[in-house]
This record gives sequence, C-alpha cells and structure tokens, in this order.
Amino acid sequence: MNASLVIASPPSRAQQIHSFLQQNNLQAWISWRPDELVMLSGYFPFWGASLLINFVDAEPVLFVPKIEPRDHIPAGLQVQEYPWGDMKCSDPYAVLASIVGDALLNAKVRAKQAGMNPSAARISLPIQAAEQIPMPENFAGLLSDVASQPNALCLANFAKLYSRKTAEETQAIRLANQVASVGLQAFFNNLQAGIAEAEIGAAVESAIYRQIGRDGIFHSRGWAMVQSGPNSADAGRFNRSTARRLEDGDLVLIELATCVNGYWSDLTRTASVGSPKPEAASILEIVKGAQRAAINGVRPGISAGDIDAIARDKIAAQGLAAYFTHHTGHHVGFRYHDPGFGILPGESSVLEPGMIITIEPGVYVPERGAGARIEDNVLVTESGHEILSRKMGSEEHGESGRDEPS
Amino acid sequence: MNASLVIASPPSRAQQIHSFLQQNNLQAWISWRPDELVMLSGYFPFWGASLLINFVDAEPVLFVPKIEPRDHIPAGLQVQEYPWGDMKCSDPYAVLASIVGDALLNAKVRAKQAGMNPSAARISLPIQAAEQIPMPENFAGLLSDVASQPNALCLANFAKLYSRKTAEETQAIRLANQVASVGLQAFFNNLQAGIAEAEIGAAVESAIYRQIGRDGIFHSRGWAMVQSGPNSADAGRFNRSTARRLEDGDLVLIELATCVNGYWSDLTRTASVGSPKPEAASILEIVKGAQRAAINGVRPGISAGDIDAIARDKIAAQGLAAYFTHHTGHHVGFRYHDPGFGILPGESSVLEPGMIITIEPGVYVPERGAGARIEDNVLVTESGHEILSRKMGSEEHGESGRDEPS
Repeated sequence: MNASLVIASPPSRAQQIHSFLQQNNLQAWISWRPDELVMLSGYFPFWGASLLINFVDAEPVLFVPKIEPRDHIPAGLQVQEYPWGDMKCSDPYAVLASIVGDALLNAKVRAKQAGMNPSAARISLPIQAAEQIPMPENFAGLLSDVASQPNALCLANFAKLYSRKTAEETQAIRLANQVASVGLQAFFNNLQAGIAEAEIGAAVESAIYRQIGRDGIFHSRGWAMVQSGPNSADAGRFNRSTARRLEDGDLVLIELATCVNGYWSDLTRTASVGSPKPEAASILEIVKGAQRAAINGVRPGISAGDIDAIARDKIAAQGLAAYFTHHTGHHVGFRYHDPGFGILPGESSVLEPGMIITIEPGVYVPERGAGARIEDNVLVTESGHEILSRKMGSEEHGESGRDEPS
Repeated sequence: MNASLVIASPPSRAQQIHSFLQQNNLQAWISWRPDELVMLSGYFPFWGASLLINFVDAEPVLFVPKIEPRDHIPAGLQVQEYPWGDMKCSDPYAVLASIVGDALLNAKVRAKQAGMNPSAARISLPIQAAEQIPMPENFAGLLSDVASQPNALCLANFAKLYSRKTAEETQAIRLANQVASVGLQAFFNNLQAGIAEAEIGAAVESAIYRQIGRDGIFHSRGWAMVQSGPNSADAGRFNRSTARRLEDGDLVLIELATCVNGYWSDLTRTASVGSPKPEAASILEIVKGAQRAAINGVRPGISAGDIDAIARDKIAAQGLAAYFTHHTGHHVGFRYHDPGFGILPGESSVLEPGMIITIEPGVYVPERGAGARIEDNVLVTESGHEILSRKMGSEEHGESGRDEPS
C-alpha cells in the first residue's frame, strides 16, 4: 500500500467488502453477530438472530427470524425469513443452516469459498438486549458443512474491515455521540452533594432512552456508570454505580456507553462536586493535560504507540506512571470496543483517515481516594482529526478547551 | 424417583450439585457464563470473565480476572486471580485454561472426569452489560485438554439444575420481583395520553436503577419495552418502545425484564389509557381470565402441557386461538429465560416444588389494532403455588383479583 492510499478517505463499504473477499479468495462471507451485520449491511438486528451473506459478485441477502420487526431493514437489502420464534419449530438454527446451504449452492459457492468468523471475543448487543445471545455459541459448527474456517490472516483482514468508517458510518457514530451528550448533560446537572451515584446513572440513562424519535433514532440506550470520591479510584479496574452519596470536594467519574441505531459511543467525564480536594485536583488536571496532548497528536500516519506515549509521558512526568494502568484507547463505533489495534505502548500500527478511536488516559490513586479519566471519540481525518464528542456538556465545566483539529 | 420425592422441597444447592456430579460420574464441573455462576455458587460476576470449578468431594474454587471487584464474592468461596485486564498479558484466556488445568491436576481430576457446558444457547448478562461476552465464544475449546464434552443426557441433567430453586434463591428472585414492582408502579403512574412509549420505558428503568442500595441490592437493572395502541398488536413477536404517543382508549403493554444481584424477574402488564376501546377491552378481559385460570392450576404434579391447555382453551373458547401465538410460559430466575421445559402444548413434564415459572398468555389482533399479555412469576409450592409478582401495581388497576394459592 503506497502513501497516497494510506491517507485517502476510506472506500465505500461495498468496495471494502468486495476487496476483502477478492483478496482472500472468497466468494461469500457469512455473519450473524449484531456488530458484524451493522458493519457489513447497515442492518441492526432486533433479536440478534439474523444472518447475512455477502457475495463477491451478487447482492447481499439477509435472513431474519419469523418474529423480527421489518421496519428498519435497509432499503434494497434482499430478505428471507426462517422459523425462529415459531412454537412449532423445535430447531430453527438447523433450519437456518440448511437454508443458508441452499443459498450458497444456488449461487454456486463451494464450502471452501465461503468464510465466516468462527468465534467472536466480544459481541455487541442487539436491540433486545436483556439476554445474550439468541444465536447459540456453537452456531458456527452448524455451518461447518457449508462454510470453511478462515486462516488467521483472513480473520485479521476481516477485523480490519471495522477500522475505516465511511462517511455515512461516521455520521451515525457522530449521532451516537450527540445523543451521549444529552446523557452527559444530565450527569453535570446532577452533580451535587447528597445525590447517590445510582441516581445520577439512572438520570443519564433515562435522558438517553428518551431520545428515541429524534433525528431518525429508533433505538437509543445508555449504560452509565458513576463513581464518586474513593470509588473513583477503582475506575481503572471496573465501572459501576453504587448507593454512595456525593460529598463536597469529591471527584465524580462517569463511564458512558451509548448505542444509537446500532452505532456506539464510548465516553468518560470526570468532574468535581464544588471545588475538588487538593489531592484530587492535581490528578484531574494532569489527566486533562495528557488527554488534550494525545488528541492533538492524532493525524494520519502517526503510530498508535506514539499517541499512547504522548499521554503516558505526560502522566509519567508527574510521577504518576504507575497509576495509569490501562491503554490510551481503542477503535470504537460498531461496538463499545471495536476490534483492531489498541492505542498501546509500542504499537506500530498507524492511524488512517476514517478510523475512529477513543483517547482515554486515566490516573487512579487509592491512597488519595481519587481517580480521573477523560475519554473522547476522535475521527482521523485526511488533515488531522475531529473530536466527535466535542461540545458535550464538558466545556461548560471547564474540562476541555481543546484546540481545533490540526 | 418416587412420588414423595417429587413433591418434597428442593434439596440445598450444594446437595443438588453433589448429586448431579455423582450421578453423571464426574469429579468436577467447570462453568463461566454468568447464570451458571449465580446458580452454582451465588456469585454474580462483574465482567463475565470469571470461572468456577465445583468438585464432587472438595469446596468450589472461583477464578476471577485481576480487575474484578471483590466486595460481592460470597463468604467462604475460595478465590484465585488470573491476568485478564492486565495490559501486559496478551492472552489471558490461555493463561486461565492453564491455571484451571493445574487446579484439576492438583485435585487429581482427569479430563474425562471434568465436565462443562460446551455451548450455551442463551447467556445472562454480567454486571458490566454493554458488551457481550468477555469470555470468547470458543472458550470451551481452550479447555478441551482438561475437560470433556458431556453427552446429551448429562447436559440435560445439568439444565435441570436450574429448575428447582432453593429457599434462598427463591428469596432472591422474590426481591427481583419486588424491585420490578417499583418499575411497574412507574408504568402505571405514567399512563396518560400524550406521553411517548420511550418516555414511559425510561421512567420505569430509571426507577429500577435507583433501587441500588436498598435491601442489600448492589445491582439493579430493568429492560422496559412499552407498546401502545396498534403497536401492542406486535407484542407477540417483539417488544420495543417507539416514539409513539399514547392516545385515549389505547391498550398499553409493558414487557419488563429485571435483574437484581444476578437474579431475574420477567413480567408483563397491559392496561388502558382511560377506558379501552370496545374492540380492545374484550381482548384484555379474555387474557386476564386465561392467565388467572392458568395460575390457579399451578401445583406440584400437574404437567406443563395441562397448564398451557388451561390458558389456551380459555382463549380458544372466545374464537381467538390463532392470535395466541406463543408459549404460556417458561422457567425463570437465573436468566430472563431459564433452560428447561416450556409451558407448551403437549409438554408432559410435571411441575415440582421450587420451580418458578412464568404464566404469560397473550392475544394480539392486528385487525383490531390491539394486543394484550399479562405475565407473572409463579413459585410451585408443596401445597400449590405462590405468585412472586403479586401486589405490584396491578391490583390497584383492576387487573388481578387472583385467588389465594390453592
């Protein structure tokens, strides 16, 4: 790949899929996890039991359960029904595997020419999110007669399909960030002594759920986790809301996952109740500086390791290296955490236009009973970057003041 | 099993596990899905990446990720850490599989004497619920050297472990139903013309989230799906909230999943905005009658098919058989939908004390633009049954008036 290709904007999704299939000598790709379907077709499944076949030289076909709603299937996507949810069908997955086999046969695709991802490490939630997963874990096994398990290189190439978002996908992820901003506003509005972490989390999620109906939004869900005072020092290991009530001077951290129409935002804010205690204030300022510096470094051609180093060095310079215990970021958009390289020490992969990454350094100091993390979602543009989560209730609270995209 | 055993209360969980292992010639059982851990140890994992070994003749051991919170691990449960979440460990699952192998070796358990569930059809959510599943789908494959895949009979016996809840588990599921009742109260409080379905859903989920801190509750989440007017006619196929605003005379249905500390409730209510339109009113009355009759039939020794028939016949007698398109119920408690037999036509399995099932007949008539379902969680007692979801904002609205347990 020459330099001019590296910095060009991403090709259309159809072109990316076509190139992937051609380069891996495949005539078809079979997928069923919600994030795979959103990425490969734009369809966000309700039950999580839909299946998609992308062909190298034909239009894709979507298989949906009998009981799937039909009103958000992208126009032009060919649809076939199978009997999941039919009380009379005792084994709908076997029926689906058989139908898929027929479809491949009709398209003259042989088993070794159809690929699939045999096991996913993480899976995004479908619209019906209270129980995972309607497709059983061993579903790939049912397809072993009709599809082959790709080699590691092919699977790595498949994971790369998540990395470069098209303009339409970026717009959908921007919308998820705009919805998340409504949730963050509820967080800032509720920052007062006496309120419980769980009460703030509930207000944030409620504000996000209520966005359904706005701007074509048919699904909007937040997962808000609020940690205050000493609990904020745990936020590098886990995020959850407890019954603890906020006290004056606390640092309060919110980790917020937001899914809008199948596209994801992943944000974190840290603020204080009134003026922060001195031992906490410096932590917050150091994290803000490290995050701002790392974002300012985001541009095509820079390595992920170099971005990580910008944030990590700033924190290390203050003697807090041991308290920044996690990555600086990851890809985001089709999942809460997209596959692909991390923004990690020593990672040599370089940023390309169309990538959307989180920048989220954090410092958590149990001895001071305080922790802070600031996280934004940043698009790599041809000329630098754009913060998708800009203007989200943070500047009003003085935690931003970021530069314009460079 | 003789008749006196069938109607006796369930043995303790430790006894049930011991009997399962002995009867299946196993010395150990390995599990990792959240619902498996809750059922087998009472531990509700945060990340969903914990692993449990139950031994036939030794105390169980729990393996948790390095970054797992430790404050809700049941007292007396032996804990070992593994490096999931450590930036420096590139393959924590391989490390875990190796540690598990060592633990089995130390306990002198050979591979054919250790079992596991190789693939789950459905998996409950861990506390961190925004992305499934931290344990990859093919994790069972990593254990293939140290554990064997049980035969179908053994797996069926394992699924049966979910069926008979102990007194402590029943109390935890009762608490989940009490929390759900707070959500249902928010539903009834918001039933007025002009409010959007999504706004009601948000209020219900918010009310449930805010219960954290009450009665030892460290985790409380609801998934509320509200369908009004013509949307209620879809509720037999799927449940979701849209931006539609309620109108006078609408039927409004709420499907509500609630998870409290890892235990689940699954409830449905249908009510009207003011007086229901005549074509809808009869549907609601027929469903109420069918549900009440089926609940009144719940007792030890009756078959699931006979319970289903009670509800189905009532609805058929009104000429609406074709509009009752799903099961009458299922087991519930460790998941939104526990494994085990369904309350289905012709199902010969019989109810036993300690089982908790849903009773949820529904009628959905698109031509009338209306649908209704009423769903309660019902414990089979030695003498009859107890409705765990009783007194939950329903009687005040005239939808109950159920008999005492028979």
